[in-house]
Amino acid sequence: MIGDFEHVTFGQRVLFGSGRAAEHVAAEVARLGARRVLLVASDRDERVAQRVSSGVDVAARCSDVRPHVPVANAERARQLASDVDADLIVSIGGGSATGLAKAVALTTGLPILAVPTTYAGSEATNVWGLTEQARKTTGSDDRVLPATVVYDAELTLSLPSALSVASGCNALAHCVDAMWAPRVDPVDRVLAGEGIGALAAGLRAVHADPGDLAGRERMLYGSYLAAVAFASAGSGLHHKICHVLGGAYDLPHAATHTAVLPYVLAFNGPYAPDASERIAAALGSDDAVVGLLELYAELGASHALRDVGFAAADSAEAAAGTVAEAARLILPAVPPGNPRPVGEEELTALLDAAWAGRPPTSVATTGAA
Amino acid sequence: MIGDFEHVTFGQRVLFGSGRAAEHVAAEVARLGARRVLLVASDRDERVAQRVSSGVDVAARCSDVRPHVPVANAERARQLASDVDADLIVSIGGGSATGLAKAVALTTGLPILAVPTTYAGSEATNVWGLTEQARKTTGSDDRVLPATVVYDAELTLSLPSALSVASGCNALAHCVDAMWAPRVDPVDRVLAGEGIGALAAGLRAVHADPGDLAGRERMLYGSYLAAVAFASAGSGLHHKICHVLGGAYDLPHAATHTAVLPYVLAFNGPYAPDASERIAAALGSDDAVVGLLELYAELGASHALRDVGFAAADSAEAAAGTVAEAARLILPAVPPGNPRPVGEEELTALLDAAWAGRPPTSVATTGAA
Repeated sequence: MIGDFEHVTFGQRVLFGSGRAAEHVAAEVARLGARRVLLVASDRDERVAQRVSSGVDVAARCSDVRPHVPVANAERARQLASDVDADLIVSIGGGSATGLAKAVALTTGLPILAVPTTYAGSEATNVWGLTEQARKTTGSDDRVLPATVVYDAELTLSLPSALSVASGCNALAHCVDAMWAPRVDPVDRVLAGEGIGALAAGLRAVHADPGDLAGRERMLYGSYLAAVAFASAGSGLHHKICHVLGGAYDLPHAATHTAVLPYVLAFNGPYAPDASERIAAALGSDDAVVGLLELYAELGASHALRDVGFAAADSAEAAAGTVAEAARLILPAVPPGNPRPVGEEELTALLDAAWAGRPPTSVATTGAA
Repeated sequence: MIGDFEHVTFGQRVLFGSGRAAEHVAAEVARLGARRVLLVASDRDERVAQRVSSGVDVAARCSDVRPHVPVANAERARQLASDVDADLIVSIGGGSATGLAKAVALTTGLPILAVPTTYAGSEATNVWGLTEQARKTTGSDDRVLPATVVYDAELTLSLPSALSVASGCNALAHCVDAMWAPRVDPVDRVLAGEGIGALAAGLRAVHADPGDLAGRERMLYGSYLAAVAFASAGSGLHHKICHVLGGAYDLPHAATHTAVLPYVLAFNGPYAPDASERIAAALGSDDAVVGLLELYAELGASHALRDVGFAAADSAEAAAGTVAEAARLILPAVPPGNPRPVGEEELTALLDAAWAGRPPTSVATTGAA
């Protein structure tokens, strides 16, 4: 039975080619008929931005790119777009550059041509975010979806190995969590499965040799699929846990995702046999959790939350208070339709095991199975 | 290596739910804010059209639906849309109804809500077609892509078994041929692979019991994926052969596709190992050709072109002239980038084997391998 579903595809053109970013950007700007390009790229990315935009007349450049898109920065970029009467935004960089371009598109309706240089995935979603006085507002609006994405794996070669692994594991978490997210549909599951396979192969290759271009391509392709699946399926249990933990305890984003993922997979897996089977197959293993842990072992990735700064007490007893508090904070955020019922007791057990880095399978049998 | 690719996703909303067409149509018309709906549905589909559109105020109905969209019919439908100042076209029916709706959208820019009742797949593509004095013109234009598709497998229950099998095999051919079509990309391959699996399972179930709703759902889901993959990847060798044969020898569309497919698969397969592996896996077999022939045997589907009326001579010797002529006609249409080089000799051998219904593997080794 396929069952009832709703699947929304976002209209978008993807141009994928290593070493071809400048050529693809010039061709797309011409195809879109743009004449007054607003370039969004941080000062840190100045050289790559110049190279990639070398075939384009740039009307203005906005280089004041900050994480989480402060409202003041968005306002300045919007003013700049208005000053030069921009007809296209070209963003080059990581999630922050894409995010700033989206903030401009949100109020101006200008189309975006995005050239990602990391595995963040924002370029393939209609989600935007803005920060004012340390408070982040997010939303989704089809106007912020980039019209075209130009992927060039050569632009990711300079990402350090550790950062690449963290970022790739984050994308992997998007794929796994999409399998049981609130709006998941069969098409999302197929794309997420393909993403897991590409990311696992890419992560192994890039961890072994950060200069492996084929591995970088796989990671970029997998990150794209992760973003597409996540944008359609929404946030599942894993993302809700990480979102609450990150906000309440100021934990590092990617490392938190990496640590929590095996526990959510072990927790939900037995209640989502189709998802488990797809994840296992994509990881080339008979068992999803075993396959993920084998990948972690190769990558030297930790799945202990104490290692990333959560409830960094000496003993489980000393950490218990924080773990219990976190479970209470997460409970209201548990997504509807999670395959396994989630109560405070289950969340406490999951976080307790994750804090210590105990074998994730220990949470597979918590509560009634 | 992922390699270079371009992937265009068409923005579209898909609502899939058995028995929910009327509910979904009413909700979508409301969401789109439409007030003057032009309903396109043939007289033959009158009852189902009334039921499915029961929650909608219909401003006008166009029931003069003909195969291949004669220009005169398109003109009348456009005039009707203009007369009632329509703001949305709702099409209910097979490929001809969707095609007429597309012809109206092509010149008016009106959005389409498509409710397919067959496995034709036109609802998920931006391809239109018009016929004038027996000459068919086709093209692609994003304006004709339906904004929303409502899939309800209950609407396909009345399709006779034989027609369902023929239509499903046609969709299967779209998936297989997408694997090596000119614009194929990795995302198309994933969707086509999922489509093959869904269609094979659905075809088996519906052939065994035309009233099997779960099988009908699988077929409808697979047909959707086939159309999405085909729209992105374009026509491969299989479609070019069938297109030329159909036009020059007036053969039945679906049966021709069914007959030719195993030969193109056997011919191209050894030169496209990744595609062969995906097709085999989707068919649940170690070998793609073996898996397809097992499916055909269960369905009682013929892969002999003589059975569908091509060069219906008594012997291969008597049919040889027509086979050679057809090979010459097909040659200029061979798509660029076909994984295996195709000359007149190879095409003659392929058609000769297909005419007689010989084991398709006989063409796997024709010419240099």
